[in-house]
Amino acid sequence: MNNLERLRSENPLIVCYTNDVVKNFTANGLLSLGASPAMSEAPEEAEEFYQVASALVINIGTLTHENEEDIMSIGKIANDQGTPIVFDPVAVGASTYRKQFCKRFLEQIDVTVIKGNASEILTLIDSQTTMKGTDSDNSLDPIDIAKKASESLNAAVVITGKEDVIVQDQQIVKLSNGSPLLANITGAGCLLGGVVASFLFRNTQPSIEALIEAVSIYNIAAELAENEKHVRGPGSFLPELLDQLYNLDYATFEKYVNKEEVQS
Amino acid sequence: MNNLERLRSENPLIVCYTNDVVKNFTANGLLSLGASPAMSEAPEEAEEFYQVASALVINIGTLTHENEEDIMSIGKIANDQGTPIVFDPVAVGASTYRKQFCKRFLEQIDVTVIKGNASEILTLIDSQTTMKGTDSDNSLDPIDIAKKASESLNAAVVITGKEDVIVQDQQIVKLSNGSPLLANITGAGCLLGGVVASFLFRNTQPSIEALIEAVSIYNIAAELAENEKHVRGPGSFLPELLDQLYNLDYATFEKYVNKEEVQS
Amino acid sequence: MNNLERLRSENPLIVCYTNDVVKNFTANGLLSLGASPAMSEAPEEAEEFYQVASALVINIGTLTHENEEDIMSIGKIANDQGTPIVFDPVAVGASTYRKQFCKRFLEQIDVTVIKGNASEILTLIDSQTTMKGTDSDNSLDPIDIAKKASESLNAAVVITGKEDVIVQDQQIVKLSNGSPLLANITGAGCLLGGVVASFLFRNTQPSIEALIEAVSIYNIAAELAENEKHVRGPGSFLPELLDQLYNLDYATFEKYVNKEEVQS
Repeated sequence: MNNLERLRSENPLIVCYTNDVVKNFTANGLLSLGASPAMSEAPEEAEEFYQVASALVINIGTLTHENEEDIMSIGKIANDQGTPIVFDPVAVGASTYRKQFCKRFLEQIDVTVIKGNASEILTLIDSQTTMKGTDSDNSLDPIDIAKKASESLNAAVVITGKEDVIVQDQQIVKLSNGSPLLANITGAGCLLGGVVASFLFRNTQPSIEALIEAVSIYNIAAELAENEKHVRGPGSFLPELLDQLYNLDYATFEKYVNKEEVQS
Repeated sequence: MNNLERLRSENPLIVCYTNDVVKNFTANGLLSLGASPAMSEAPEEAEEFYQVASALVINIGTLTHENEEDIMSIGKIANDQGTPIVFDPVAVGASTYRKQFCKRFLEQIDVTVIKGNASEILTLIDSQTTMKGTDSDNSLDPIDIAKKASESLNAAVVITGKEDVIVQDQQIVKLSNGSPLLANITGAGCLLGGVVASFLFRNTQPSIEALIEAVSIYNIAAELAENEKHVRGPGSFLPELLDQLYNLDYATFEKYVNKEEVQS
Repeated sequence: MNNLERLRSENPLIVCYTNDVVKNFTANGLLSLGASPAMSEAPEEAEEFYQVASALVINIGTLTHENEEDIMSIGKIANDQGTPIVFDPVAVGASTYRKQFCKRFLEQIDVTVIKGNASEILTLIDSQTTMKGTDSDNSLDPIDIAKKASESLNAAVVITGKEDVIVQDQQIVKLSNGSPLLANITGAGCLLGGVVASFLFRNTQPSIEALIEAVSIYNIAAELAENEKHVRGPGSFLPELLDQLYNLDYATFEKYVNKEEVQS
């Protein structure tokens, strides 16, 4: 069975500690795909949730001093339970506060996948970045950034952008699906973090194939949504993206996936 | 005047202390129906809000140590003001933390309606339940669970599922409207809690008829939404559900309601 | 270049400290319009964000004791950085708690624009208002309220209602675009606050023309959305409003704007 069909048959529990802006959209996106999201944030119940969860998403989009320690705690509990973590360092380059938190988090917690744009991932491994909010415009090669980040942070790395780059276990792949409308809706990247988590099935050493499936299925859904005649902007794109995630099958993924292996 | 028309004419203020994932959808659902939602969470203003509110919804979907005491406080203030409470013990079976909180809450606060799936309601009256997230798959008869819960917790009970069961004042009814797509969107159950609250009109002893109207109108709206030709998944179902709640009239409720009285 | 085209070319960073109910919709609305929203709430990163932000929105819709001091702090930091603030005193008339907070905030922080309905703005300058939730039904003339508020609070004032009133620098204008469906979705007014902020471009003394553009473009988008054949309620109105904000151009604004200058 391929991972998509496994996902639809197992409905894996994905716990999301994510930002306030995207909780609803992330939950609806994961439900549309076939996963079972739970936005549990209390460390008091983390152990019970993570024992049965397929993966945990940690997204720092609305980091505050009230939730810093909770995020550290749940990260440790997930590590203790062997639950894979997808880490999304949203806008880490935008403030010293975010940079310091991410540094501390990644020093103390093992993560399975780190997902971000090139600027965010670069910030995690380099202090010389400028303030760019959540967008990336760095001129460094994303493949180089992903390779360095994967090595130094000991995790699979997914860099999103016009093209996406995945590095896992010294394998590298470049993916070219997606839609420009993803940049016009909030939480597109955050939902992708949840989608990647949905393809982990408690595996802290996922194959690059599982990550390719996750990223490509999401981007192909976006591509198909954009091409629907009734989609005329971000408003109509949003529900159509959910419908595409709901209806997309493995054959469609195979038909449209646009990937290129890169020599490491 | 029937309750739906009263609702549309009075636009009752429904205060919701609900989880972070569904606040927007709950507010839009209640506005579509004709109620006036207010997501006020500060105990400092609870007395002034509850004096004029038609009902209060308390939903523990994203319970944390930061909001536990606030929920206890506002529950007491609502009781002091005679404002009916609809209590939604989301995923109470998923953690000891939730179970203990709900137990404490229900010991100290009088609630008018408890709404949940069979597994959640069973957890409130029984400690031998297994971890099931927000979904129910318990094999016990929902009618038995609802009857026991209504008696032991001294409240009307609404159990949702493929069929819904309502027990109020020793009357029992089984309802069979709804759509499977409700399981593919987040907050479908949470919004139903708000809809039930919208039919209370400050009444802490509501008639079972008012509860039937609330649950059935919501489920019929979902049924009609699912049957719209342009609905092809959770994404297109969501806005259509809001439109149906906005447009549904009492005659449509009477035409489609599927209920069965059960001997107690 | 007109302000709309400038906005689309510069994609100004708009930081929003807004209520939990509307974060997602506000972010999507601003992205659709062409701005770059960031829902950063940590005072620890406020200085870095506000240095590059075009404006800050502060919306007290879900004020709690946990976030009161953070709001005061970020207001001071925005003032220190010269970043204009759009202040939205949501439901300020609904509780003494909100009234006292808004009074304290406006005494200590300079704001560039205050936006609210007539009842909310009146509450800011008068203690004799009754509890009305987020809706306005005050019989006082909105023009009088706006003039007094602008003078006493030393800010531009935008009063929303069936007709909107803007007072800035002793100029007064009445606007008559919009859609009744805006009252049936949550966060319509909150998003307008963000739209106004998107037309400020770090200007703490904006021209009344910039404010007219902001309010009218939003209302014309709503008008056009309502008139789309497929819009049959709040559910279908929501995505269509985003699409209209995305597609509306300056010529459409000029064609439909309905404004009337008022002698002061």
